[in-house]
Amino acid sequence: MPYAVSTMEKRLDEQTIELASFIAGRALATVTEPRDGSDPVVKLASPDELEAEFDKLTSIALGPEGSVDNAVLQEAVDLVIDRSVHTQHPRFFNQNFAGADPIAVVGDWLGSSLNTTLATYEMSPVFTLMENAVVGRLAELLGYREANSGKGMSNGLREPGGIMCPGGSTANMMALQLARHRKRPDSIRTGTGGERLTVFTSASGHYSTAKAAAVLGLGTDAVIKVADNADGSIDVAALAQAVQSSAERGEVPFAVVATAGTTVAGAFDNIRAMASVAADNDLWLHVDACFGGAALFSQRTRNLLDGVELTDSFVWNPHKVMGLTQQCTMLAVAEPERLDACFSSKADYLFQPDKLNTELDSGDRTFLCARRVDALKLWLTWKARGETGFAARVDHAMDMADHVRTRIAESAGSMVQMVPGSYVNVVFLWLPEELRQGSPWDPAQLSEDQLNALHSVAPRIKARMQAEGTAMVGYQPTDGLNTFRLLFMNPVVTAADVDETLRLIDDYGRQEWSALMAER
Amino acid sequence: MPYAVSTMEKRLDEQTIELASFIAGRALATVTEPRDGSDPVVKLASPDELEAEFDKLTSIALGPEGSVDNAVLQEAVDLVIDRSVHTQHPRFFNQNFAGADPIAVVGDWLGSSLNTTLATYEMSPVFTLMENAVVGRLAELLGYREANSGKGMSNGLREPGGIMCPGGSTANMMALQLARHRKRPDSIRTGTGGERLTVFTSASGHYSTAKAAAVLGLGTDAVIKVADNADGSIDVAALAQAVQSSAERGEVPFAVVATAGTTVAGAFDNIRAMASVAADNDLWLHVDACFGGAALFSQRTRNLLDGVELTDSFVWNPHKVMGLTQQCTMLAVAEPERLDACFSSKADYLFQPDKLNTELDSGDRTFLCARRVDALKLWLTWKARGETGFAARVDHAMDMADHVRTRIAESAGSMVQMVPGSYVNVVFLWLPEELRQGSPWDPAQLSEDQLNALHSVAPRIKARMQAEGTAMVGYQPTDGLNTFRLLFMNPVVTAADVDETLRLIDDYGRQEWSALMAER
Repeated sequence: MPYAVSTMEKRLDEQTIELASFIAGRALATVTEPRDGSDPVVKLASPDELEAEFDKLTSIALGPEGSVDNAVLQEAVDLVIDRSVHTQHPRFFNQNFAGADPIAVVGDWLGSSLNTTLATYEMSPVFTLMENAVVGRLAELLGYREANSGKGMSNGLREPGGIMCPGGSTANMMALQLARHRKRPDSIRTGTGGERLTVFTSASGHYSTAKAAAVLGLGTDAVIKVADNADGSIDVAALAQAVQSSAERGEVPFAVVATAGTTVAGAFDNIRAMASVAADNDLWLHVDACFGGAALFSQRTRNLLDGVELTDSFVWNPHKVMGLTQQCTMLAVAEPERLDACFSSKADYLFQPDKLNTELDSGDRTFLCARRVDALKLWLTWKARGETGFAARVDHAMDMADHVRTRIAESAGSMVQMVPGSYVNVVFLWLPEELRQGSPWDPAQLSEDQLNALHSVAPRIKARMQAEGTAMVGYQPTDGLNTFRLLFMNPVVTAADVDETLRLIDDYGRQEWSALMAER
Repeated sequence: MPYAVSTMEKRLDEQTIELASFIAGRALATVTEPRDGSDPVVKLASPDELEAEFDKLTSIALGPEGSVDNAVLQEAVDLVIDRSVHTQHPRFFNQNFAGADPIAVVGDWLGSSLNTTLATYEMSPVFTLMENAVVGRLAELLGYREANSGKGMSNGLREPGGIMCPGGSTANMMALQLARHRKRPDSIRTGTGGERLTVFTSASGHYSTAKAAAVLGLGTDAVIKVADNADGSIDVAALAQAVQSSAERGEVPFAVVATAGTTVAGAFDNIRAMASVAADNDLWLHVDACFGGAALFSQRTRNLLDGVELTDSFVWNPHKVMGLTQQCTMLAVAEPERLDACFSSKADYLFQPDKLNTELDSGDRTFLCARRVDALKLWLTWKARGETGFAARVDHAMDMADHVRTRIAESAGSMVQMVPGSYVNVVFLWLPEELRQGSPWDPAQLSEDQLNALHSVAPRIKARMQAEGTAMVGYQPTDGLNTFRLLFMNPVVTAADVDETLRLIDDYGRQEWSALMAER
């Protein structure tokens, strides 16, 4: 059988081992020797520049060619690393994830290496129990399930508290499907029909609710956006009114999505008050805590989730604040048996009833089929850090956010906090000297021209940061004005890193403001 | 700032580096020194046994405890590896994935280490272009887009040919949503309403179509299952008839899903003939080639996808036959601008129009938000193997499948092939001596008792394989009889491995049949 031998050689020959070892070494170095403050966060390159740089080695584009030499691919790997954004860097504040935990990174690797799927116990005996352990522990922390640590966990490991998903948007969509199923069980078979089902969330709630409504066939019009309070949390009286108005229009309110940690301000909706509205109106209450779920672990933040035991479902992305790598999402469900009722199809080629241990198969509790074993890295990190370590990570992030708030208060008007913050987000405006005012700062005192200039200075500051690789900070419009958002979660960030970032913003700000004025 | 320093030490202290290096080393060993035929495929353990083994180190269950010591976690990691299924093993044939390519594994690691997301060019400059490269090349191979290799690929890299997704079920659902959007553009905003939209697929098509229909609010009744031919491919005349009948009932046929590589038999629907039905009835033609997409690369199998250039969308999972690790899914769309029209929400906190290079942002072309950078491992593997290497992998799998078919033909009736096979699947029955017949084998000649015994022997053979760790082969009912399915894709599998597996089945079969007869 000569082909068998030659293929064996082809896959595990010295060349393959050499290249695999090289890439593994580079990957490990990014973990154990991460970039520090003296390295660039990013070396900005336009698509043209990137294409040209790869063309010197091997084009990014693919074609019918044969294999590329190891030496070339090794240089390409170094170019990939060199030209990527370094989310471990102590001045990377651009996203709601940063500073991956090294244990999570290599836990992810081990899952990739073993290359199996979470669908059946047969294929993932260990990972099935680990998934039940992590989601079950979340269910305990939420009060969905009584904590049974210390009195034998067997039941906890045999019964799911929910399921892991590839991302928060998928989990949010699954929660809405569970909600529709509870309200209209037949809809799984017959569809929604002509009924106008409606779902409620705040104006600051994540866009995935609207995207899910489109996919679910409800339509984006079915999402009723409720006004926020000044801090970005939902106005619960307005919610109650919106639900009543919808019912009066002949629609069928079926779900409400509470946000725990809004994307921009980090605001937490009042879950306990929303639970009362939900109970009064027979609505499924889902908590989108993709960003804010980490608050469960610290005494300083736990109260932000007050009332969560009264909800029906809860999604948390440990890949955000907790530093698990992309992707790591848990959907906890207060009545997890609803997952089977809602999503099961009992495919006989996969979930054979006469197989061993099929009662533990997880694959039919979702609309997905094979899932990555994201449970492994989460379990390893949870064990390695402990819940005390998780709390410490949150507390450090809160300390850093408080530090910025202090610096803003001390800034003599050069920075203005735009929303009060109770979590790891700080949303603020940088102001040139001529636009500074006493407190509170009032945009109504600015001319249209001044407001336009101020709106355009944040993107220019950001472009300078990217061009020089000194820091990465996001911005977005707040009340029509581009506003910076610093997000804390990376444990290596120090107060000195924060101060340096604020200095950079001020420095670039002055220069860009002068340039803007000169351009007029 | 003492907390900053202490946290820094906590995350990158010697303990963390020690544990991370240990796990990384074990992960690398599974790649460069994979199990060979003398190792067990799996060491079967019941949930009770697994719990007890972990309890000796640290319970699988999680609680409020602090961190677990490195020494304990290192033992736990070894236990994870020891008790997991080894999908690289040369006698693992249980799933439609096996034998991950080492380059894909470590490419996955590098993506985890850099820990960024595919949503904006800003966060993934290199990976955005790589995603466009891999999906664009797929679009070229399908004939969706003219090949522009050799005449400058810039356009190809700037325009997506589709998008990568976390798994085939998600991609299939997105394709159906694109189909609904083309038929009823307003449904994105207003929902499906009372109209009965219908979608068609074969009886052997994947269950994800039904699951997607439930999630999409169409309901599982909206999926009209069309009869198969004897080889498991769709009966196209029956399809045309089913579409006509649906329209006559006042329903609105809007999509048809062709299957390229059915789950059990590996059958390929006649895409060219289906395209004609789709064109006549204004249906979106989606190809579920999750399993069969690899056929594009070999001259021996390319014709199985004849007519694919006439379709609207196509999903391929390179994590199946091609050995990319979980998860790796590409959705190619003939008119990719439809992705924006169908899924975009223009969230202003993420897709700021005044940012650099936003025209390349991919995140608004899906209902998902952050996506793993699965494009990196696929790009690296495509470059390292070349399309000639991809073809060789498929050809080796076809050789192995042909080898089994030959062995079955030579088996003097001890094995019966249950469906004709044109791909890497071989579906066959093992028969005890007393039930063997001349060719063709006819189950109608068996008594009810004999059929029941035959149905129960396959699970018993499989349980023996698992208990002894000698091999893993799937089974499922075919015409009501449990039937084995061998799937080929792992390049390290040799004819000797296949012969040994058939010998094991025969050996266990004889023993289990005797035991079954004795139990009566």
